[in-house]
Amino acid sequence: MKIYDWPTGPYPARVRIALAEKNLQSDVEFVPINLWKGEHKRSGFLAKNYSGTLPVLELDNGVVLAECTAITVYLDALAGDPMLTGRTPLEKGVIQMMTKRAEIEMLDAISVYFHHATPGLGPDVELYQNQEWGLRQRDKALRGMHYFDAVLRKQPFIAGEAFSMADIAVIGGFIFAAIVELPIPQECVALSTWFERMQERPSVRKQLAIVPPKH
Amino acid sequence: MKIYDWPTGPYPARVRIALAEKNLQSDVEFVPINLWKGEHKRSGFLAKNYSGTLPVLELDNGVVLAECTAITVYLDALAGDPMLTGRTPLEKGVIQMMTKRAEIEMLDAISVYFHHATPGLGPDVELYQNQEWGLRQRDKALRGMHYFDAVLRKQPFIAGEAFSMADIAVIGGFIFAAIVELPIPQECVALSTWFERMQERPSVRKQLAIVPPKH
Repeated sequence: MKIYDWPTGPYPARVRIALAEKNLQSDVEFVPINLWKGEHKRSGFLAKNYSGTLPVLELDNGVVLAECTAITVYLDALAGDPMLTGRTPLEKGVIQMMTKRAEIEMLDAISVYFHHATPGLGPDVELYQNQEWGLRQRDKALRGMHYFDAVLRKQPFIAGEAFSMADIAVIGGFIFAAIVELPIPQECVALSTWFERMQERPSVRKQLAIVPPKH
Repeated sequence: MKIYDWPTGPYPARVRIALAEKNLQSDVEFVPINLWKGEHKRSGFLAKNYSGTLPVLELDNGVVLAECTAITVYLDALAGDPMLTGRTPLEKGVIQMMTKRAEIEMLDAISVYFHHATPGLGPDVELYQNQEWGLRQRDKALRGMHYFDAVLRKQPFIAGEAFSMADIAVIGGFIFAAIVELPIPQECVALSTWFERMQERPSVRKQLAIVPPKH
């Protein structure tokens, strides 16, 4: 199978970490789509993913899967431990909820900030910006960090007692926060401690070793 | 179990349709949270769902699930046909992808339009509006309708050959489009025909019979 992505992208990181956790990297050919040149907004790529986002998984039979959660659910159902999307109905539900919350309250909010209230991918790619909206989303992400800090004061992982897709989504948030130079608030001690613990996982350490270049 | 929702809400409709498909309605006590009074933004409710959205499922042991996809995944894993979230890894992945796409490209876009570029839930609830952003999201939703129309020219359901959670998400989009009086473009014949076919399902017909009141 192929993964269309850009190695330093925060969303691609989610699927790369999931692949490493499932030990599936060697089954994948990575095809670079240059975000900084806007290749993800061109018609050839849009035919694969209408929403124009990375990453995209393409199976050998040509079937295409977009969206990090969808790709992770697929990979997780293919085989093996660790299970990233849960085993019981309740685990599955809670992990889906916390993953979505990580997107809404942190990762996606930082993405909107990046694309709308910073130079983002540059004037050739960012054809419309709404700075006020971007700044509000930055503030939302900061509130979100405090929320996840409160979650992690009560439990070791974002969705409870085990590492899951929801942790990976928040790690994506940390990666994007570093790119936009949005510091994690100092008082979010549980969140910072959790992030240090996450870096003990080879899958995460390997991804974080890729320094996010601006170009 | 309890569902906190508001009967005419487009997102609550998604879970109500899923419950009806799974024949689980009689297991549920519905607790009204009045959107028009902003009850979903008050601290009591925010303690249940940080994101302040409806619906929310509360189990008898007090565990709380928010987010339509998460709730549907949970209900679907509990028992019985029809399976709304897929059986094979690929079915699961495709349904997750198309559900997310229905949100991004139609349902969530209409929601942003409603809350930002119309009076929305009224001045006591809509404390911040960004009209320009709202109008862009309206246009995005209209493009999304054309996208789903193209999808339905090639296959009978949003995620392929079977009814799924992704169809329910687009139905949520139709419900919200009716509330904001955003007509489905006439040229989207496959989309309109699909929606007529969806109304043959008792779960959908019952939900659509609830006329959306403004208050």
